[in-house]
Amino acid sequence: MIKNDECLDDLQNGFFVIQKKNGFKFGIDAVLLADFSKDAPSKTTLDLCTGTGIVPILLSAKTKTPKIHALEIQSEIAEMAERSVEYNKLSDRVFIKCGDLRNAALIYGKSSFDKITCNPPYMKCGAGIINNIDTKTISRHEVMCTIDDVIRSSADLLIPKGRFFMIHRPSRIADIMCSMKKYKIEPKKLRFIHPSPEKAPTMVLVEGMYHGGDELKILPPLYVHNEDGTYSEEIDKIYGRL
Amino acid sequence: MIKNDECLDDLQNGFFVIQKKNGFKFGIDAVLLADFSKDAPSKTTLDLCTGTGIVPILLSAKTKTPKIHALEIQSEIAEMAERSVEYNKLSDRVFIKCGDLRNAALIYGKSSFDKITCNPPYMKCGAGIINNIDTKTISRHEVMCTIDDVIRSSADLLIPKGRFFMIHRPSRIADIMCSMKKYKIEPKKLRFIHPSPEKAPTMVLVEGMYHGGDELKILPPLYVHNEDGTYSEEIDKIYGRL
Repeated sequence: MIKNDECLDDLQNGFFVIQKKNGFKFGIDAVLLADFSKDAPSKTTLDLCTGTGIVPILLSAKTKTPKIHALEIQSEIAEMAERSVEYNKLSDRVFIKCGDLRNAALIYGKSSFDKITCNPPYMKCGAGIINNIDTKTISRHEVMCTIDDVIRSSADLLIPKGRFFMIHRPSRIADIMCSMKKYKIEPKKLRFIHPSPEKAPTMVLVEGMYHGGDELKILPPLYVHNEDGTYSEEIDKIYGRL
Repeated sequence: MIKNDECLDDLQNGFFVIQKKNGFKFGIDAVLLADFSKDAPSKTTLDLCTGTGIVPILLSAKTKTPKIHALEIQSEIAEMAERSVEYNKLSDRVFIKCGDLRNAALIYGKSSFDKITCNPPYMKCGAGIINNIDTKTISRHEVMCTIDDVIRSSADLLIPKGRFFMIHRPSRIADIMCSMKKYKIEPKKLRFIHPSPEKAPTMVLVEGMYHGGDELKILPPLYVHNEDGTYSEEIDKIYGRL
């Protein structure tokens, strides 16, 4: 079930994920996104840009959601995620599909989900990228989808009052807010993630509600490290509860 | 020069400001805004929603800007600010006008400034407000101008590459980002202000550039207090340099 160029990573919560030895590996962002979104109750969740399937696998551990769908554009990665689902015996709860999120409403039907999560590629697609596209590039750069694509598709896929969760770079917050407003996914919560209390944030967690009321809350910051370099208590808790 | 219902507050930097004893008093937000904007060089600055004139008076101490204009809609407050300017012998550098910022381009002419500062009313104008408008209400609520009004007028008034500085509530960040993008004042820097490191931010400093490139930086947080309740070193410095 595990190919030669792959490895099996133990999530320390009874679940495992298959990853490419030399490919894009899931990071703290996927773990933070799953944790941030876990308390919103859901009957049918969709994870966009799912990659290895890390977010739906974590959500299957952290929530009671009976149906967790996940979409990945790269067929080789989607197939690997599918094997992770089988390895974890989650085939009755987690459903991986290979497809383009820009057509996701055609794949799943409009208004099919009450919760969407997304840990998209963070980096803008510069001119240099176009000539050198590999699977890592697609995972990291906006080659196949932009912030606006993710949010427009999510609006199509969510039921009214359905919740949208994304993690991204703080430098993209203006684009994120404007696309959310444009497609009626009202920004509800922002949480900035700082390497340590004195440093600028490097990630931001975003929660929105499709057709929600206009009321945005900025949560207290999440610090990854204490000033002495050790992991913060909150990060230990989030990883401990994996 | 000081009326019976007014008091003279010492800014501890050689300057003074006249305020109403029972009116809206300037707060830490005006001080932070002046400090945040002080390093952007300017030949002609405009402060919108100037109130007592606190920001132009602080900027006259903190910068070399030769001409600092300031606009206030309430005639009684504008007249008081004018007396503060005279009291401080700043009449050749600071110019107070009474007028509506929604018509500011008619007052000053389009593209007249290389820097605009604004500490606007923070609170949305609820239905209850309309029947009870006094000077404090106008200073605190969006009775006479909204975020969109401030940003639209600023875009009219700034030269290309001119800088826009505002302080506001973090809960309004989506509205602020969207209006800035709409009127081509590109968000360049955000700095969140937290009462202390573990608390959610209560204010945000925003810097934008009219017709600037798309590159937003989130600065390290500014903490008002240390965990033991004393003022942070940075706040002491900002007030010390008043």
